[in-house]
Amino acid sequence: MQNRAESYQEWLLKSYINQMSQTHSNTALSWRRLYLSRAKLKASSRTSALLSGFAMVAMVEITISAEEKNPIPDALLIVFGICTTLLVVVHLMALMISTCILPNIEAVSNVHSVQAVNESPHDEMRVCVEMAWVCSTGLGILLFLLEIALLCWVKFFTISQNTAIASTVIVIPAGILFIAFSLMFYKRLMAHKYQRHTEGLRELDEMARELDNRGDGVNII
Amino acid sequence: MQNRAESYQEWLLKSYINQMSQTHSNTALSWRRLYLSRAKLKASSRTSALLSGFAMVAMVEITISAEEKNPIPDALLIVFGICTTLLVVVHLMALMISTCILPNIEAVSNVHSVQAVNESPHDEMRVCVEMAWVCSTGLGILLFLLEIALLCWVKFFTISQNTAIASTVIVIPAGILFIAFSLMFYKRLMAHKYQRHTEGLRELDEMARELDNRGDGVNII
Amino acid sequence: MQNRAESYQEWLLKSYINQMSQTHSNTALSWRRLYLSRAKLKASSRTSALLSGFAMVAMVEITISAEEKNPIPDALLIVFGICTTLLVVVHLMALMISTCILPNIEAVSNVHSVQAVNESPHDEMRVCVEMAWVCSTGLGILLFLLEIALLCWVKFFTISQNTAIASTVIVIPAGILFIAFSLMFYKRLMAHKYQRHTEGLRELDEMARELDNRGDGVNII
Amino acid sequence: MQNRAESYQEWLLKSYINQMSQTHSNTALSWRRLYLSRAKLKASSRTSALLSGFAMVAMVEITISAEEKNPIPDALLIVFGICTTLLVVVHLMALMISTCILPNIEAVSNVHSVQAVNESPHDEMRVCVEMAWVCSTGLGILLFLLEIALLCWVKFFTISQNTAIASTVIVIPAGILFIAFSLMFYKRLMAHKYQRHTEGLRELDEMARELDNRGDGVNII
Amino acid sequence: MQNRAESYQEWLLKSYINQMSQTHSNTALSWRRLYLSRAKLKASSRTSALLSGFAMVAMVEITISAEEKNPIPDALLIVFGICTTLLVVVHLMALMISTCILPNIEAVSNVHSVQAVNESPHDEMRVCVEMAWVCSTGLGILLFLLEIALLCWVKFFTISQNTAIASTVIVIPAGILFIAFSLMFYKRLMAHKYQRHTEGLRELDEMARELDNRGDGVNII
Amino acid sequence: MQNRAESYQEWLLKSYINQMSQTHSNTALSWRRLYLSRAKLKASSRTSALLSGFAMVAMVEITISAEEKNPIPDALLIVFGICTTLLVVVHLMALMISTCILPNIEAVSNVHSVQAVNESPHDEMRVCVEMAWVCSTGLGILLFLLEIALLCWVKFFTISQNTAIASTVIVIPAGILFIAFSLMFYKRLMAHKYQRHTEGLRELDEMARELDNRGDGVNII
Repeated sequence: MQNRAESYQEWLLKSYINQMSQTHSNTALSWRRLYLSRAKLKASSRTSALLSGFAMVAMVEITISAEEKNPIPDALLIVFGICTTLLVVVHLMALMISTCILPNIEAVSNVHSVQAVNESPHDEMRVCVEMAWVCSTGLGILLFLLEIALLCWVKFFTISQNTAIASTVIVIPAGILFIAFSLMFYKRLMAHKYQRHTEGLRELDEMARELDNRGDGVNII
Repeated sequence: MQNRAESYQEWLLKSYINQMSQTHSNTALSWRRLYLSRAKLKASSRTSALLSGFAMVAMVEITISAEEKNPIPDALLIVFGICTTLLVVVHLMALMISTCILPNIEAVSNVHSVQAVNESPHDEMRVCVEMAWVCSTGLGILLFLLEIALLCWVKFFTISQNTAIASTVIVIPAGILFIAFSLMFYKRLMAHKYQRHTEGLRELDEMARELDNRGDGVNII
Repeated sequence: MQNRAESYQEWLLKSYINQMSQTHSNTALSWRRLYLSRAKLKASSRTSALLSGFAMVAMVEITISAEEKNPIPDALLIVFGICTTLLVVVHLMALMISTCILPNIEAVSNVHSVQAVNESPHDEMRVCVEMAWVCSTGLGILLFLLEIALLCWVKFFTISQNTAIASTVIVIPAGILFIAFSLMFYKRLMAHKYQRHTEGLRELDEMARELDNRGDGVNII
Repeated sequence: MQNRAESYQEWLLKSYINQMSQTHSNTALSWRRLYLSRAKLKASSRTSALLSGFAMVAMVEITISAEEKNPIPDALLIVFGICTTLLVVVHLMALMISTCILPNIEAVSNVHSVQAVNESPHDEMRVCVEMAWVCSTGLGILLFLLEIALLCWVKFFTISQNTAIASTVIVIPAGILFIAFSLMFYKRLMAHKYQRHTEGLRELDEMARELDNRGDGVNII
Repeated sequence: MQNRAESYQEWLLKSYINQMSQTHSNTALSWRRLYLSRAKLKASSRTSALLSGFAMVAMVEITISAEEKNPIPDALLIVFGICTTLLVVVHLMALMISTCILPNIEAVSNVHSVQAVNESPHDEMRVCVEMAWVCSTGLGILLFLLEIALLCWVKFFTISQNTAIASTVIVIPAGILFIAFSLMFYKRLMAHKYQRHTEGLRELDEMARELDNRGDGVNII
Repeated sequence: MQNRAESYQEWLLKSYINQMSQTHSNTALSWRRLYLSRAKLKASSRTSALLSGFAMVAMVEITISAEEKNPIPDALLIVFGICTTLLVVVHLMALMISTCILPNIEAVSNVHSVQAVNESPHDEMRVCVEMAWVCSTGLGILLFLLEIALLCWVKFFTISQNTAIASTVIVIPAGILFIAFSLMFYKRLMAHKYQRHTEGLRELDEMARELDNRGDGVNII
């Protein structure tokens, strides 16, 4: 019976080794993507709720002077209206995607079973997650930057147009800096991912080989 | 006595195996649904509280110009009033359902006993949970989108109607995009669930067969 | 000595079995009620703080037009004042009960000792907990619904009474729906609890019988 | 050496038993009081920050009509000023006590060493903790109730005094209900504590006796 | 080999004992100070963000009547401006110190290695931590108290100066009470620390002696 | 076989020792930097969201008096516009960097595998993390300080210029104090890091030597 029990342990060990090597190539990566999706959706929904709220309150509370001699041109108000609406739409889009997908991911990440990751829709929905994230951080923050400049124009048009011009002069290089940072960030992330991928494959190979040797050792006993 | 102890372990193992196979077909799925319900209700209540608050503050704070020569038409104000009321009602509905059902689910998920899941009312109340979620994310976000366009109309009617028109032009395709996304999301989720269901049944079958073999092995010793 | 040590384990096991069967009938149920009370009080206090805050800000910020020719009737303002005051009172009541009882429950749920549940006042205070919950979700949300309709009346009385009427037309069926949902929810919860209770008693019986058999087995060794 | 190792385990067991019995009479109670103090201070600081903020914003934003023919009487404004100031002072007091004592308690509750509870100042500062809690929930909520009635008076004095009267008619019985609830809650809590105390002493006695018996058993081996 | 393995365990035990005694005199105290610093900085940053925000919003939103016949004296406005600026500066100082030091402490407290406490700058920065805490709770709350009185003066100067006087009459004794509480709290905390220090040293001595005895016992085997 | 199993444990132990010594020199430091980056980004994003929100609301809500006889000079409004825009841009920059990098770090810190730290981009992105932190705490708080002084100037220019001067007199030394604190903090942190680095290397050396000795001991058995 001592013998039998050992063979049980062998079976356990072997199946564990198999599971491990499978895990490293498939499940582990899937969990990592799940955590990344969850973190992105959470960050998106928090940022979006905040910025869309500020934009909406600003539009409701700003007082648009209706003086006769120096009225605010219609074009400025149209651009302001479009920017505010777009800003709220973009952040609502991000909020909606987050509220739709996040519960499905959260439910899976609470289950504490390794295979549960396959139940999660984060791989099928990867395009949506990325869209929510880009809406919220990329497009959303750029539009918010534009909104600040437009708020200055609407607020100071009748009193001091130089203030609005000064504000615009700051916002334009800032916008270019934002876009540059986004591209640089995207490039670095891609390079980092590619480098990790090749390293990961090599490590996996070594690990599998070593485990194979040991597994054989245990097998032969 | 050594013998006796073993038979105790056998009993333990067998009952564990039985429990496991039962668990996989019934309890585990129930826990998963419980976590999903909890995550949905939490997301609904957060989103609803935020959006209904913004809508109410916007309605209270907006200044409705009462000029003589170019008054805001009654129809616009009626639509605005209906939209705001509906928005608040829909989000209050979601908030109420969350506050009613969530404590019962939370109390169960704190108990750390596997069978406790049957005490939770999330299966009986599934229709309510879905309703809260649809109220909050589906209907609620669409109404909020409409609210933005109506706010622009009320704010800019006397000053610059073109601004209101521009805002509407953006909101309409956005609304269509939202509905399209919802349908696409629902379809994918259903497809994903169906695929997982069939896979899950197959896995369960294999697992039961393997455990049966091993269980027999242990039995025979 | 080997013998002695076994008898010690027997004693441990027996006392564990006894404790377990006691636990299932008494302590476990008490813990479950404790978690339920805690979750209800937390949900009440969060909802109440939010809604009473919104109601108070709305009352302070709304501008009551004092036109001569079409003044807001006194009756409307009286109903508005009563509704706002009641809303704040009801939510303050819920907040106060939460702040009073919650620390006593939280202190117990941090102790990690199974018997500590008896130190908690949640069973004596069950009426208060239920009152806080009904104040916050039941009465509180209904009053908030009424408040929205009244806010529309006060805001739009001099400009467009049709808006106020339209808003009321939406609020009335919504209120009926809310009450219907509450009753349905209460009925289902009661039915669920009764069903679980009878099932729980049967399970307990079986468990006690099985443990008794096994306990005897261990005893006899 | 087998012998020696046992004597080590005996020593461990005995010291554990001694520690346990000491713990139950002294340290455990101290931890329970620590958790209660922490929960009370947290609840106080949250409630106080919220209510004092609302009161201050309400005072700043309310528009006091300065009409000639029907001015707000000086006495009303004085009472309003006193109530707002007292409200903010009371909640600031609670906030200050919380911010002073809470870090000292939190630092101890993070240490995970049973004896660390003696380092915590929550027993010396018990009067302060109780004061913060009474300031925040007792006095603070009553003053907030009064503030609502006074806000109605200031807001509606020139427009509709009946509204203010109606609001007061609701607030007075509510205040009496609040005081009655506080007294009832205090009485029940005291009764509950006394009952638990006597039960606790009896349980402790039994436990000590049983442990003593078993401890002797192990000793004799 | 059995022998050898034991000597390994001895080495482990001895090094553990050595580490423990070192830990108690040095590392443990350092961890306690780290948790205290972290709790203080967290409390400071939360309180400061809240109070500076309220003060700034109050200054921006208050309407300063510019009547001709009874203007607000320049001295009052100067004191109001100084108080608001000081309040915001003091809380920004606390916020800045928190944001600078907190990440360094948080990073260490996540590492779960006992020796990591030496990496944390909380001992070098103790003066800064204390300054942040005193700025936020001591000076900051006193200035906020003064701010309330000044807000009443600015708000009610032209309407009802008696209101402002009444408010001041409440604030002055409250301020004295706050300072008295601070001093009393500081004195008690010092007394408590001194008492604990002497007790701690005595306990440490006893512990070291006992461990020494046992360590010798294990050594001799 | 007993022999074989031992050799397996040896292999495990040796590989553990190797991993440990590697870990201390490389992975452990990387984890520490990961936690530091995460804590910095979290603190930055919280502070930035708060301060940029306050600045934007203040700009929208402030009423700029357009009196004829004593108008606000254009230069003041331009400086105010530039300061507000810069403030919002700087904090948006910090918010954007946080939202971009934080999810990648969070996803890694959830994986619970020691080697996972190499997947995190926090080492490549160290410049960005530092930039976000300096933007948010350094530049951001200084600009907020300036904003307070400018708000006083805009608010009190037509009513009482002495108030604005008094406010400026406080802000200037505060700004110098802030810069001095920043430099002092940076210097101390650098000195602390250098000292820890040299100590760390020495400890590592000793540890490696000791482990080597023990490892040999186990090897030889």
